[in-house]
Amino acid sequence: MPDFNPIDHPHRRFNPLTGQWVLVSPHRGKRPWQGQQEPPAQETLPAHDPDCFLCPGNPRVTGDKNPDYPGTYIFTNDFAALMPDTPLAPENADPLMRCQSARGISRVICFSPDHSKTLPQLSLPALEQVIAAWQEQTAELGRTYPWVQVFENKGAAMGCSNPHPHGQVWANSFLPNEAEREDRLQQDYFIQHRSPLLLDYVQREQADGSRNVVETEHWLAVVPYWAAWPFETLLLPKTAVQRLTDLTPAQSCDLAIALKKLTSRYDNLFQCSFPYSMGWHGAPFNAADHRHWQLHAHFYPPLLRSASVRKFMVGYEMLAETQRDLTAEQAAERLRAVSDLHYREAGV
Amino acid sequence: MPDFNPIDHPHRRFNPLTGQWVLVSPHRGKRPWQGQQEPPAQETLPAHDPDCFLCPGNPRVTGDKNPDYPGTYIFTNDFAALMPDTPLAPENADPLMRCQSARGISRVICFSPDHSKTLPQLSLPALEQVIAAWQEQTAELGRTYPWVQVFENKGAAMGCSNPHPHGQVWANSFLPNEAEREDRLQQDYFIQHRSPLLLDYVQREQADGSRNVVETEHWLAVVPYWAAWPFETLLLPKTAVQRLTDLTPAQSCDLAIALKKLTSRYDNLFQCSFPYSMGWHGAPFNAADHRHWQLHAHFYPPLLRSASVRKFMVGYEMLAETQRDLTAEQAAERLRAVSDLHYREAGV
Ligand SMILES: O=P(O)(O)O[C@H]1O[C@H](CO)[C@@H](O)[C@H](O)[C@H]1O
Ligand SMILES: O=P(O)(O)O[C@H]1O[C@H](CO)[C@@H](O)[C@H](O)[C@H]1O
Repeated sequence: MPDFNPIDHPHRRFNPLTGQWVLVSPHRGKRPWQGQQEPPAQETLPAHDPDCFLCPGNPRVTGDKNPDYPGTYIFTNDFAALMPDTPLAPENADPLMRCQSARGISRVICFSPDHSKTLPQLSLPALEQVIAAWQEQTAELGRTYPWVQVFENKGAAMGCSNPHPHGQVWANSFLPNEAEREDRLQQDYFIQHRSPLLLDYVQREQADGSRNVVETEHWLAVVPYWAAWPFETLLLPKTAVQRLTDLTPAQSCDLAIALKKLTSRYDNLFQCSFPYSMGWHGAPFNAADHRHWQLHAHFYPPLLRSASVRKFMVGYEMLAETQRDLTAEQAAERLRAVSDLHYREAGV
Repeated sequence: MPDFNPIDHPHRRFNPLTGQWVLVSPHRGKRPWQGQQEPPAQETLPAHDPDCFLCPGNPRVTGDKNPDYPGTYIFTNDFAALMPDTPLAPENADPLMRCQSARGISRVICFSPDHSKTLPQLSLPALEQVIAAWQEQTAELGRTYPWVQVFENKGAAMGCSNPHPHGQVWANSFLPNEAEREDRLQQDYFIQHRSPLLLDYVQREQADGSRNVVETEHWLAVVPYWAAWPFETLLLPKTAVQRLTDLTPAQSCDLAIALKKLTSRYDNLFQCSFPYSMGWHGAPFNAADHRHWQLHAHFYPPLLRSASVRKFMVGYEMLAETQRDLTAEQAAERLRAVSDLHYREAGV
């Protein structure tokens, strides 16, 4: 029998942040695809769309009118999943039908007045404004809520109903599942190893290099060893940072560069506006000790083979275990092989 | 402030099988949808499609020819994610880059020679054959593998690339994430309460009735209290049963009735071939004591508002916590309000 070789042989990899395994089946990339295709994104959008709820000066669904904003613009989600004043649910210890109160706030963050520009197409000063908005929202909402989830759903494939560049921030009166799990597992690691899990990890990846996608002065983006989505990445500061609000001005400016390069590589991979959900995880705003926390952003893009063929996390994945069709190293190599200059700006 | 009311007020519910919370935001159903629509399924399919890889007598991708099968037909997946003879991966205790061997077998189960019929459209004897195939596969593969995952991906929205009625069975040399988690949580409950979690649960739901969707002599299908997907259901035997292979002949026959009624209600809800991923969880085939296990099937359908508008589990869901837009009770009520006779057979 041949020796084990991770490029030819199915194996499982462990995600130390979630405690979950991922089944890696690299030989599966060869199977033909006759299934659903993603609708192609509209190629050229106008800088202002009179029917867009998010463009400056336009009315929203509720009838409220957006101001003529020049940079970022933030407003409360008109259909928020959480509200600040929900009555408290009665205490309930029933092990089979446990219920808990949930309060919060949910806001929309428009990244730019320009309807046609996504993150990689924004200028560095415009990206710095987006980062500043993420930081201000986190600081403000963190004074009231233990968890502040900053995220972006991009593209129709990710349930985004409007191409206008925007993200969201949902603040929660509770630690949501993923936050609670990452908190617990980073803490366990810290107790055992006396250093933050993701700080050890970023140093290992920097030295190894095989999963690196973008490296700037202060940031490293890798396809994590345990990636679930085909071209998933993890964006990490290279030194200890607990929250978005703890970044130095130099780290914040450099983050704009890292984001522009990473999202440009994504768009260049299949020469399309690359869909994804992305979001930030940082130390919760509760009373606990947070030395075990390291700030990071997850990028979860669904595409697998082309601009129109995605990975479906269904069946076996929902009922048993996440499964991927190429290794993290293969995905990183493909993202490194394309330019970090956006294909639509390359000629400029 | 008004009293807490689960139909108006966001709250969290706890899934005792996975230990995860679900955020319920019932008032969110009101928001307008301008996003992606699912492509409608082809309305009438031929009983035999010469281009289908699964129809009797046709060649498969590999060139192998399907026999002229009259009932169910089972063959090894031509692009299996797991193989029985993968070389063992070296032992690895690295906490940041843990890797593990994975072996297994993956087979396709054609439910019927008729290309045009899905589960609700099969006769009861044909459904009994499907159930017998699930049982035989589980028994055979359970002699070698600790976990046997029987499942069906149905519909293009669930990554199914071929409308020919079929499911899959993947046997694993390891307990996948979901199996390990359900095993652990059912065991914890059993130690504390001295009876199986899901047996207690099925009795509670039978008595309550507000989440019931289909009840037959031996089976109950409910939208579980902690449902994640809009019209998710859990199908349970009403008495203690650990595995598909432990069902009595009477329970197996009655399961055909329950499956036909449940999938007919699904199709009737939006008058379409209702997409879903479904699959069975039963006690693992390892040496441990399994008194805590109760057999069950999960149905995870993606549709939310209509045949063409699905729920997207993206952004907040991926980064923080699953969120749903109607209560489990509201979903059950809608499924109860439609007939359990399939809309295409109703006139027959
Ligand atoms: O094996 P199939 O049907 O080609 O593939 C489908 O089901 C598999 C198991 O749930 C998934 O891993 C694939 O992403 C999905 O497209
Ligand atoms: O709030 P939006 O963008 O309308 O909605 C989108 O993002 C939400 C948060 O990730 C999800 O719950 C929705 O399913 C999705 O369609």
